[in-house]
Amino acid sequence: MLVSETRAQVRYAETDQMGVVYHANYLVWFELGRTALLESVGLDYVHLEKQGFVSPVIEIEAKYKSPVRYGDQVTIKTWLKDYDGLRIRYAYEVLVEDRLCATGESVHVCVRAQDGRPVAMRRNLPQWHEVYEGLKSGAISRLRRSGEAER
Amino acid sequence: MLVSETRAQVRYAETDQMGVVYHANYLVWFELGRTALLESVGLDYVHLEKQGFVSPVIEIEAKYKSPVRYGDQVTIKTWLKDYDGLRIRYAYEVLVEDRLCATGESVHVCVRAQDGRPVAMRRNLPQWHEVYEGLKSGAISRLRRSGEAER
Amino acid sequence: MLVSETRAQVRYAETDQMGVVYHANYLVWFELGRTALLESVGLDYVHLEKQGFVSPVIEIEAKYKSPVRYGDQVTIKTWLKDYDGLRIRYAYEVLVEDRLCATGESVHVCVRAQDGRPVAMRRNLPQWHEVYEGLKSGAISRLRRSGEAER
Amino acid sequence: MLVSETRAQVRYAETDQMGVVYHANYLVWFELGRTALLESVGLDYVHLEKQGFVSPVIEIEAKYKSPVRYGDQVTIKTWLKDYDGLRIRYAYEVLVEDRLCATGESVHVCVRAQDGRPVAMRRNLPQWHEVYEGLKSGAISRLRRSGEAER
Repeated sequence: MLVSETRAQVRYAETDQMGVVYHANYLVWFELGRTALLESVGLDYVHLEKQGFVSPVIEIEAKYKSPVRYGDQVTIKTWLKDYDGLRIRYAYEVLVEDRLCATGESVHVCVRAQDGRPVAMRRNLPQWHEVYEGLKSGAISRLRRSGEAER
Repeated sequence: MLVSETRAQVRYAETDQMGVVYHANYLVWFELGRTALLESVGLDYVHLEKQGFVSPVIEIEAKYKSPVRYGDQVTIKTWLKDYDGLRIRYAYEVLVEDRLCATGESVHVCVRAQDGRPVAMRRNLPQWHEVYEGLKSGAISRLRRSGEAER
Repeated sequence: MLVSETRAQVRYAETDQMGVVYHANYLVWFELGRTALLESVGLDYVHLEKQGFVSPVIEIEAKYKSPVRYGDQVTIKTWLKDYDGLRIRYAYEVLVEDRLCATGESVHVCVRAQDGRPVAMRRNLPQWHEVYEGLKSGAISRLRRSGEAER
Repeated sequence: MLVSETRAQVRYAETDQMGVVYHANYLVWFELGRTALLESVGLDYVHLEKQGFVSPVIEIEAKYKSPVRYGDQVTIKTWLKDYDGLRIRYAYEVLVEDRLCATGESVHVCVRAQDGRPVAMRRNLPQWHEVYEGLKSGAISRLRRSGEAER
């Protein structure tokens, strides 16, 4: 199974008065993880939107196990957990060094930007369909290029 | 069952380039819903923190059913779904007029701010325990005062 | 001079680990103030975007005088400070009760969404031009309707 | 003059429905720039807070010259513009490749976390005072270590 790893520095803006990162901001980290995974397998979300599609989140969940603080650097592990031709389910782990701080999952569809209607991936976005199938089956198991640069 | 209703105007800052409210911002609305529910039953979160406790989110989930846009006014319905003396589970609905846009749940504990250790509510925060029990059993079924003012 | 007043409850999400509202979030309050002022004089920003225009911020400044905390309710006073047919300058005050917490100003233009080119207001958005002139000259000096409801 | 350069990938969460980065989010980039500059000269903000001080923003301004979009990578240039023993003024430039997208400045003081009173840097934070003086005079003109790692 291909697991993308990307890193993010905690921003002061992301903390709250409990002195830890505010829980909603983990969802933004999940987004960074997805972006890194997609890039690592050659998929370009900006291009998908230019073709007239968007890929909204339809479900999200997170479990918070250990707080993250300003000064920490988080590692976000992301992988494709399920795909049925319409819905894509990603899974996430957020770590600070070896400490598991949060886990999560999100489900996405692709919809036509114009009318918001979900589209079958195989017909409308065959390249994406093929990669998702490859990730699900394990046929794609190595990063085409490092997903860890910069982010 | 006591259901708090509170309202929020969509902020431009909350939208993203899909032209809809970014999914992580619904979690902030859930927080507004919780605040309104707590206030409606006479619980004061600011005071809880002054006593040396905080109440972090340990689990969250959301299902997005219909997009919310700038110019919309959302109604957030919030109620206590479960309570076991340690964990509090809230449930949420986000509506624009009669359209159900999202549902969600969150689980919280109370912890000592100093060391992050969870505390038994009955012993440490008896007023909160009593209200949670009352909400769970249905003994508290009317708002003490309007939870709909301002927010 | 017409001064719009609108109110906002501080959100937990808006605090940072200093225990006060993070400075960038005041800019969102300024936006709420602008929205309230525009609505109070019958201008509808959602409609402006539907006509193919957007109104980006080109300059912003804020001075922070006294911290705002979770539990506070802020009042945002907003007025038109200057207008030259192209640029609109708003001024803001953020107060908690009688305590002045911040002041600010922002400058905006209207641009065509398609190409980002600034447009002369008089020709392209005559209703907006007329109201801005009225605000500047003082001819519009009373709110058409309360800008203080809900927001 | 020592200019720190740090980079950030635009996050989807940072865009708004204009299809560009929401203006308040540039202030978070300024913060990343400050953090990078401080680290590059060996100052540790986390440690400053552990000593009982915080360094709030008391003034901020930004000029937006060209929009930044999802998919862009921004470079944030940061330098110390002025220092009088009490107030520190930073200046910023945000670029996408060679395109200057925004400029800004911010003014900070150090205050005792306990009571919010500003403190004279020389007496209370001599290491910080010395570095600020060195940056102002130009005596510190090279990065001690790369400020461009990760961020």
